Amino acid sequence: MKKHNFYAGPAILAPEVKEKASQAALDYQGIGLSLMELSHRGKEFVEILDKTQSHVREILSLSDEYAVLFLTGGASTQFFMTAMNLLDQNETAGYVDTGSWSSKAIKEAKSFGNIEVLASSSDKNYNYIPKAYDIPNNLKYLHLTGNNTIFGTQTKMWPEINCPIVCDMSSDIFSREIPVNKFGLIYAGAQKNVGPAGVTLVIVKKDIVGKIERQIPTMLNYATHIAKNSSFNTPPVFPIYVTMLTMEWIIKNGGAKAMEQRNQRKAETLYNEIDRNELFVGTCNTEDRSPMNATFVLKNENLGTDFLRLCEDAGIVGIKGHKSVGGFRASMYNALEHESVEVLVSIMQEMVKKFG
Amino acid sequence: MKKHNFYAGPAILAPEVKEKASQAALDYQGIGLSLMELSHRGKEFVEILDKTQSHVREILSLSDEYAVLFLTGGASTQFFMTAMNLLDQNETAGYVDTGSWSSKAIKEAKSFGNIEVLASSSDKNYNYIPKAYDIPNNLKYLHLTGNNTIFGTQTKMWPEINCPIVCDMSSDIFSREIPVNKFGLIYAGAQKNVGPAGVTLVIVKKDIVGKIERQIPTMLNYATHIAKNSSFNTPPVFPIYVTMLTMEWIIKNGGAKAMEQRNQRKAETLYNEIDRNELFVGTCNTEDRSPMNATFVLKNENLGTDFLRLCEDAGIVGIKGHKSVGGFRASMYNALEHESVEVLVSIMQEMVKKFG
Repeated sequence: MKKHNFYAGPAILAPEVKEKASQAALDYQGIGLSLMELSHRGKEFVEILDKTQSHVREILSLSDEYAVLFLTGGASTQFFMTAMNLLDQNETAGYVDTGSWSSKAIKEAKSFGNIEVLASSSDKNYNYIPKAYDIPNNLKYLHLTGNNTIFGTQTKMWPEINCPIVCDMSSDIFSREIPVNKFGLIYAGAQKNVGPAGVTLVIVKKDIVGKIERQIPTMLNYATHIAKNSSFNTPPVFPIYVTMLTMEWIIKNGGAKAMEQRNQRKAETLYNEIDRNELFVGTCNTEDRSPMNATFVLKNENLGTDFLRLCEDAGIVGIKGHKSVGGFRASMYNALEHESVEVLVSIMQEMVKKFG
Repeated sequence: MKKHNFYAGPAILAPEVKEKASQAALDYQGIGLSLMELSHRGKEFVEILDKTQSHVREILSLSDEYAVLFLTGGASTQFFMTAMNLLDQNETAGYVDTGSWSSKAIKEAKSFGNIEVLASSSDKNYNYIPKAYDIPNNLKYLHLTGNNTIFGTQTKMWPEINCPIVCDMSSDIFSREIPVNKFGLIYAGAQKNVGPAGVTLVIVKKDIVGKIERQIPTMLNYATHIAKNSSFNTPPVFPIYVTMLTMEWIIKNGGAKAMEQRNQRKAETLYNEIDRNELFVGTCNTEDRSPMNATFVLKNENLGTDFLRLCEDAGIVGIKGHKSVGGFRASMYNALEHESVEVLVSIMQEMVKKFG
């Protein structure tokens, strides 16, 4: 039975990505060795790294002012590494608190400078994106979260400001077009739209690095990885290769613009059903709904077990909501086909026939 | 043609490890999804993590006093993370400088306390392991490097001391038996004897953590990963799975003791040839030679191209020496078969016939 993968992350990969990854794990390009057995200084991996970077540049229309780095440690490491690298102890950065991940970013950054929380939607369990907030003139950077995976909201407007935006785009990079020049630094754990778990994409405007006085361990200094082109130490070879394959798949399928259209169409199909269906209700402010992660609940919680069983019978996996919100979450990353959303919608309609 | 993989790292994996990894990348256990697409909170990966840890415990005979963590960032991250977590600014740790990696560990640690370099073999381009050195009584820990991948030496005696040993075993963990109770912390980038690049094994005695006053970012604090069992954030799922497969392979083949015997036999075969062959000479002090990485040079450097061509024709890869030593390096990790060493030896003998 075909599976419909709605996991929030690690998440769905395109079929051809999986096939090529599987082949490379056994025998890379017929050379008689697995990609996992090859030196990261050898010509095979150097070519992979180079291609992955140029694909990322192409998809985001990045200028040479930006470096494309493949690090590890996930967004959780970037929460402190951004502030550690960009903010001196007496400087101020602004943060907008739109969910659990923003909160963690704020907590970690506080060790490295003055952190001003400009707005928060914690008053309503993060079911909306704050928009009307003042942005001081003295900020070193403004930290935003592109997409809130847990709560199902997305930042759709990027404020006009005179400092760079630092943005956690773990769950929506490459899913839509972005005005990339507004950003000083974008970071993303790979395991949603980029590739598998085990690599962290960091896109950084080179001229914002090295402007502070703090001593930084070599491995935590962006300057190290810029200078050594993500190969100061052994990078995560296989996860980077799967990232390259995913970038190739995105480009072949029309790039960020086509992904955005494809994702909008899936989101409309699902949100229309959530709004039409008498048994379900969405948890977020309508205009802030994320095309990546749709969060919704059953009005009658007692029907949850029935719904999950029907989903399971239809091959749907990963639909259970995060504990902070409850209910259900359908993650619809780039590689998810419209057909999978239709299957989910049909189950929601079947629920009405049975229990409506 | 069969390849003989002498890469220093990322390095050879056992055939059955590659086959199972390849299958899991496409479809994990027939569930219709790649392992890379599954939630790290799901039952599949939780089971993998659990098995990987218990295999590591079994191979090393680890007591419950130790935690087994799967982190990222490689040994290069552990160079600072060990000192950051274990040493207060006014405390002293001892380091023995046996190569490039030790030197980097010393450099990074210096930001976090008093670092006393007790001995160094830098005077002879690290071609031996210092043994007669005084160990002060006031050390918080003694840092050693188990195996020096670049220079081809191995620490074979563990000093009797009254503080824990912190050890970089990136290139020899699981290759031999070790007196594990002497160690407070062992770290290892996976990409030699543990698994593929992208995961870092840390074995830490729990009672040495949390004894200092420094504030540490959440992701850099061993206590975080001990408390959350390596799942505070999304761990590198696929590299951990390949690690599990490698641990299974080690256990099936007799554990650390059998690996040590197997590795000793390979090392003897190669070092005997190096010593017997009139064209080649080993670069290290005989008693300190590493069974993992044999470094040797041609007495007549001009024959290098011929030797490398013969190696290539025989399917040998990864034999070129590191730039710090020059010449050649044969890395003979656990998964390398004795047959591959025999092929290398036959090429060295062929060289004598042609050029001797």
